[in-house]
Amino acid sequence: MILAVVVTGAWPASAQKQLTAQQVIDKIKAQISAPVNPDTVDTFKAGDPNTPVTGIVTTFLDTYEVLQEAVSAGANLIITHEPTFYNHRDETGFLKGDPVFEQKMGYIREHHLVIWRFHDQWHWRKPDGIIEGFTDAVGWGKYRRPYEQNAFTLPPTTVGQLAADLRAKLNSRVIRIVGDPLLRVTDVAYLPGASGEDNELKELERDDVQVLVAGESREWETVEYVRDAAAQGKRKALILLGHEVSEEPGMEYCARWLRPLFPGIPVTFIPAGEPFQRVPR
Amino acid sequence: MILAVVVTGAWPASAQKQLTAQQVIDKIKAQISAPVNPDTVDTFKAGDPNTPVTGIVTTFLDTYEVLQEAVSAGANLIITHEPTFYNHRDETGFLKGDPVFEQKMGYIREHHLVIWRFHDQWHWRKPDGIIEGFTDAVGWGKYRRPYEQNAFTLPPTTVGQLAADLRAKLNSRVIRIVGDPLLRVTDVAYLPGASGEDNELKELERDDVQVLVAGESREWETVEYVRDAAAQGKRKALILLGHEVSEEPGMEYCARWLRPLFPGIPVTFIPAGEPFQRVPR
Repeated sequence: MILAVVVTGAWPASAQKQLTAQQVIDKIKAQISAPVNPDTVDTFKAGDPNTPVTGIVTTFLDTYEVLQEAVSAGANLIITHEPTFYNHRDETGFLKGDPVFEQKMGYIREHHLVIWRFHDQWHWRKPDGIIEGFTDAVGWGKYRRPYEQNAFTLPPTTVGQLAADLRAKLNSRVIRIVGDPLLRVTDVAYLPGASGEDNELKELERDDVQVLVAGESREWETVEYVRDAAAQGKRKALILLGHEVSEEPGMEYCARWLRPLFPGIPVTFIPAGEPFQRVPR
Repeated sequence: MILAVVVTGAWPASAQKQLTAQQVIDKIKAQISAPVNPDTVDTFKAGDPNTPVTGIVTTFLDTYEVLQEAVSAGANLIITHEPTFYNHRDETGFLKGDPVFEQKMGYIREHHLVIWRFHDQWHWRKPDGIIEGFTDAVGWGKYRRPYEQNAFTLPPTTVGQLAADLRAKLNSRVIRIVGDPLLRVTDVAYLPGASGEDNELKELERDDVQVLVAGESREWETVEYVRDAAAQGKRKALILLGHEVSEEPGMEYCARWLRPLFPGIPVTFIPAGEPFQRVPR
């Protein structure tokens, strides 16, 4: 009980360096008013929560390379938006003996890293931390509609120009368009990551949305819905940024949000980067 | 009962034109020895199975444009590998009132089309019809390993060259690579469509597979597994063709396979085509 009081009270920077991973995470959770779903995936995935924190890293997904960079930077608490072990629940039973999993887990143990996932609460935060980071990164804050966090009225453009603009701003290699690149649009909805068909169709069915900008989408679902909509002459299009490209800025924003909370601990954003390469010419 | 006898017996071509959609499908099913899963998705999705068949169309997915081309060609039985209504089970309840769904359903009704899905049994056929079509289309028959339908030992190449070769042969706009495009490879596994992480990892964990060629894959699962494997120096890579690109040749092969079964009925392959456009330069 005494610890809890100390953590939430004022604390000199020198002493704050000794916070454990558990204490850091408790303090983060206390900043977000949304109720915690008991089934949340926002849990420790590896390492000892009682480890004193030397530095915090935020990232879209703690790839093997991100972990190596964190170690180089002297940080030992990794806050990752997406899973460490290649499935939403970070189940590891089916990966026992798999050489990629075993080497990653071995690296985490050897370097005494602590991994915590910050997915649900970062999305449920008001405003959604991922949407805020994306909006900042693409400079759409001034185009946001009143009372709608993820809908924007842009200066008139085409779907193709919009995609090219996003590619430049987000430094992406692979963006895919469904529908007519020449379609003129102004009303855009953004859904980060893999939102699922129900959410995607809810946006696309709106009369005041012509183009949905999303992360990834199953190719036999919303992708084909939009293809049919376009073939029917409806003014609808879909831009798939890729999951990482659509969400990574939200974890850069997370680092900016964390720094004032932990003035005595270095907080570093390490981008996972886009997983895809294009086919060489 | 008499009808059944007639259908499976010899029948002059002129009379065969009067087969109903149900009779055509019964005859197709009778060609495949694999047992039918009672939960199969291979069912009629729209139209009256008692409709006399004027022509058969095969396609990867019966998009709105494919339906229009089928009508132009005078065909009324559409055999589609993937769903008509944007979800695996072709459920339509959640789409009631949706303008894209309503217009597609209206078009099907207006033109008295009959839609049947040929997914499970075409895959369960020995050999898998989709894998056969792909192998033909890319010319890998001579490289196939004995007793392994989807594993090939190619002349040495790099991942990037292999992807470029597949792009040319399959006439694709968007292919994505995970891992090092310069990795030298010879052992390739192919998994059509969206096979799921379990199947994908089973291939990638093999010592005699360096590169998996697949349709689509969730970006927080196998995609990140391969990225980590490559970062660990393991000789693994993933080429994502896209769902349509990976499976469409299997439905062209389906048309070739159907023609001798129904000599009196025109059988036409209509490609759905790749749903994605690249971002304009």
